[in-house]
Amino acid sequence: MKIEMERIRPEEIEKRSFEIIGEELGQKGIVLPAVQAPIIKRCIHTSADFDYAENLKFSDGAVEEALAAIKGGASIVTDTRMAYSGINKKCLEQYGGRVYCFMSDEDVAAAAKEQGTTRAAASMEKAAGLEEELIFAIGNAPTALIRLCEMIQEGRIAPRLVIGVPVGFVNVVQSKELLMALKGTAYIAAEGRKGGSNIAACICNALFYML
Amino acid sequence: MKIEMERIRPEEIEKRSFEIIGEELGQKGIVLPAVQAPIIKRCIHTSADFDYAENLKFSDGAVEEALAAIKGGASIVTDTRMAYSGINKKCLEQYGGRVYCFMSDEDVAAAAKEQGTTRAAASMEKAAGLEEELIFAIGNAPTALIRLCEMIQEGRIAPRLVIGVPVGFVNVVQSKELLMALKGTAYIAAEGRKGGSNIAACICNALFYML
Repeated sequence: MKIEMERIRPEEIEKRSFEIIGEELGQKGIVLPAVQAPIIKRCIHTSADFDYAENLKFSDGAVEEALAAIKGGASIVTDTRMAYSGINKKCLEQYGGRVYCFMSDEDVAAAAKEQGTTRAAASMEKAAGLEEELIFAIGNAPTALIRLCEMIQEGRIAPRLVIGVPVGFVNVVQSKELLMALKGTAYIAAEGRKGGSNIAACICNALFYML
Repeated sequence: MKIEMERIRPEEIEKRSFEIIGEELGQKGIVLPAVQAPIIKRCIHTSADFDYAENLKFSDGAVEEALAAIKGGASIVTDTRMAYSGINKKCLEQYGGRVYCFMSDEDVAAAAKEQGTTRAAASMEKAAGLEEELIFAIGNAPTALIRLCEMIQEGRIAPRLVIGVPVGFVNVVQSKELLMALKGTAYIAAEGRKGGSNIAACICNALFYML
């Protein structure tokens, strides 16, 4: 069997990938809003899953709001160590922001046990104590997104943006519906079951690379 | 709008998720081989993408070989920091294995620059110097998988298992064809473009949880 590789220089691979994604979106007749396109294409690049061309939903002005928040030094809170690992922290630090993930913290584990909730939900409570402008990137646990939405409704926290891309089968769809039903909260959400820590990190990075 | 949440205890969420996955596979008429089912279902759990029921390919006896290798203390090499972060290291350490990722190493960056290759490919060269039983979990870069396959063909390295799930659009499909065409190398691969660091980590963890 002869396997034909595409001959390409390492630094050209990403550019070529985005060209292919653009071509195939065109073949499918999908036209992305210009301001959302870099984010949607990067999610497809990360997953090779064109469903993200259809399922990513943006509140009005979400991208502009996110870019302004990042430029202003907002920090990012995520519910997964993998997303923490994947977010380009050097990029964010240029603007003064940090990335937080409280999932492995002992006080979070203790609080979750005491309250009969998940560590992910308890980690959101901890994040509510941060006195900074915040973007949330929820890539794993619907319980984290639900708790976050409740805290927003209670007026306890007012994030600049919520990236709502938990993945899975139990309360995942509902958690995103809850987010998208909030009034006055900027969001980028993956409607339906799909998402993940890779998608959460990828949306953060796509925003950085737009600046 | 009324959003109805499923009422469930935190510790029941994963079990319920796997039940839903099993039910929906049944509705689709898909019957998974028993030894592969925990791995395939966990990939669906991680991505909410039922394509993994079709695209995951196992060499004969791959799972048994992988479990024997892990029990024997094999270590895991991965090409992505996100997969490194997601692999349950405590679980692996119980059997004596470690997880390595050389992607951020300065000597790897220098070697890649000198050789005009990717850091991912150079990180595989570095891994070939490890004097241990190894499982490779390639979740990002086809260039890493291609270099690994070349080193196997050259007789420079003989991994116990290769998890070949790079994701993307340039040489990704071909890199997996190369892996699946090798004689005598156990593999678990995601045929086609899909895969990712989340899938690489998830396959490792699924193997641990089978022990």
